[in-house]
Amino acid sequence: MRKIGLNEIEDIALGAALLGAGGGGDPYVGKLVAIGAVRECGEVTMLDPEEVPDDALIVPIAMMGAPTVLSEKAIGGSEYKTLFEMISRFYGKEIYAFMPIEAGGVNSMLPIAACARLGKPMVDADGMGRAFPELQMVTFTIGGMRATPMALTDEKGNSVIFDTITNKWTEELARSVTMSCGGSVSVCLYCMNGKQLKEYAVKNIITRSEQLGKAIRDLKNCTEGTPEEAFYKATDGYKLFKGKISDVLRETRGAFNFGKVMLEGLGEFKGRSAFVEFQNENLIAVVDGKIACTVPDLICLVDTETFTPVTTDAMKYGKRVYVVGLKCFEMWRCEKGLELVGPRYFGVDTDYIPVEERSKVVFE
Amino acid sequence: MRKIGLNEIEDIALGAALLGAGGGGDPYVGKLVAIGAVRECGEVTMLDPEEVPDDALIVPIAMMGAPTVLSEKAIGGSEYKTLFEMISRFYGKEIYAFMPIEAGGVNSMLPIAACARLGKPMVDADGMGRAFPELQMVTFTIGGMRATPMALTDEKGNSVIFDTITNKWTEELARSVTMSCGGSVSVCLYCMNGKQLKEYAVKNIITRSEQLGKAIRDLKNCTEGTPEEAFYKATDGYKLFKGKISDVLRETRGAFNFGKVMLEGLGEFKGRSAFVEFQNENLIAVVDGKIACTVPDLICLVDTETFTPVTTDAMKYGKRVYVVGLKCFEMWRCEKGLELVGPRYFGVDTDYIPVEERSKVVFE
Repeated sequence: MRKIGLNEIEDIALGAALLGAGGGGDPYVGKLVAIGAVRECGEVTMLDPEEVPDDALIVPIAMMGAPTVLSEKAIGGSEYKTLFEMISRFYGKEIYAFMPIEAGGVNSMLPIAACARLGKPMVDADGMGRAFPELQMVTFTIGGMRATPMALTDEKGNSVIFDTITNKWTEELARSVTMSCGGSVSVCLYCMNGKQLKEYAVKNIITRSEQLGKAIRDLKNCTEGTPEEAFYKATDGYKLFKGKISDVLRETRGAFNFGKVMLEGLGEFKGRSAFVEFQNENLIAVVDGKIACTVPDLICLVDTETFTPVTTDAMKYGKRVYVVGLKCFEMWRCEKGLELVGPRYFGVDTDYIPVEERSKVVFE
Repeated sequence: MRKIGLNEIEDIALGAALLGAGGGGDPYVGKLVAIGAVRECGEVTMLDPEEVPDDALIVPIAMMGAPTVLSEKAIGGSEYKTLFEMISRFYGKEIYAFMPIEAGGVNSMLPIAACARLGKPMVDADGMGRAFPELQMVTFTIGGMRATPMALTDEKGNSVIFDTITNKWTEELARSVTMSCGGSVSVCLYCMNGKQLKEYAVKNIITRSEQLGKAIRDLKNCTEGTPEEAFYKATDGYKLFKGKISDVLRETRGAFNFGKVMLEGLGEFKGRSAFVEFQNENLIAVVDGKIACTVPDLICLVDTETFTPVTTDAMKYGKRVYVVGLKCFEMWRCEKGLELVGPRYFGVDTDYIPVEERSKVVFE
């Protein structure tokens, strides 16, 4: 058990944006929401998953929708309370603690804001260890858990409770409502007890985000080697490309941001080219026509000067970036995991090969 | 209090299809559902609204979606029980009786089936006195009542509860989910107590449907005047046109059937032409370029031989029909009523003038 205050928020937001793998929302917007809540209501108590009683009601809270919408249509403030009451009423039991569902600029921050405003603790765990675009894409689905009862509310005060036959149906119906509500909403889903949390959650992911954020911030003071080398060391990252963004294609469809970013090589990659395709999050990185990394491994773009993560909605012409591959949470690499979030699910007709292997094509 | 059995169902279905004003679903499909339930589970007790205690929980039940979809994607059978449990759980109180929300081939029949299967009584009342395409279009909205909590379920077993800030938002969100569920779903909404029922419902509309159905069936035995004359007398209808359908334009969009049917005059209307536009239900009838009737008054097409109502999904080239105007329920003619269902709401840029006046243009 420890406290999360303003300093921790800065680091968590930075590291979570990296783990967002291009998605998870704008860390600037996310940070503002969390900082505002902590300034007004005080620091948040963060629990280690092992500290949570087996029968406690633990509820992930998140924003759902297109990241580009999130940055213009923020949350109203009464959503946390509405969700809290909907879920507590459904279970006839108070929520013990909230947790994030994914790592990302907004979705790592929102639970901090909710916990600060409602005076509840937050659990240091999530359901992805990164960000994914669809709501059935959580380790809890691998564990056979149901997304529903799922509570959804918008900033206007509309709210909906879903109870569906599969988690894919939850995604389908909640996505329709999200679009009708203007493209982004606040949700609680995969309500679970402490036992399920300990079995299937990605543990200590907030702490991991904080460590990554701190490491990125410290790069400018690194004493051994170049900042770039220090960056790969701190993140356990695989170097995939360095280049200048030469084009970005985007489409907002079905409350998702789809797109493709084209890169022209810089430095040691001079004369080479690459592209990255995304659906909210980066899905596949291709260097000189060869696949260098695919989901569920993380493909992250970071600024070549500051190593700040570049989310898919912040990509623009001329920006100079490193493309980095990170290993995903181990559970994603099992058969059930790859069915949920492997390249074929996203329409990329290739087998999943871990980034440790895939990334070798870059230097062949 | 009286019993609704197989004979009553035949007449109610026929009369309700007329009051459906082109919508409300295929009376053949509706009848099958009601007859099947009554054969298996016995007759249904129908209560006069005045027999309902003031504090009883009364719940309208209906199908929502495009009529063309309803006729191919029927209900699964477990929907009534699911809805019953969702609403009872929400209120912590058992449902006292169901009622229809609108008059129509399917939506007058579904409550009979639900009541038979769940052993509950049905109230002789609805919220429109006809059919309308959107769910905020009920007398209960005029009375300031809320559509939510609204329960929705599909034949696969997905279910959703809505709680919205306005009835228009209920329509918006429920319509999205209806589309995602394949275009038609079963719903309960405008849950009310007996007092509200007595104040705002359209009373005795099932009995009125039954009388209309019986009258249409008896036309072939009429002894005074022609069957056509007897038809106008029995229905208090205004003669708008007699013609052959020469074209039908249709579009299924947003889980609605939009369209326009063109008519070439027959008999006394020889050489004249007319058209009727619809959104599930008929919205406006135009004879020789002049508006002869608009919503909220009822525009009904009936077969020239049998006087059977022709719903918008059954209109086809060559069919010979009478176009009849019926006065709507009085409450629709007030300012609030016309805001909800007047011609301008549907994009027809004209004032509402009652069919008693409008229909005079036909014989000028």
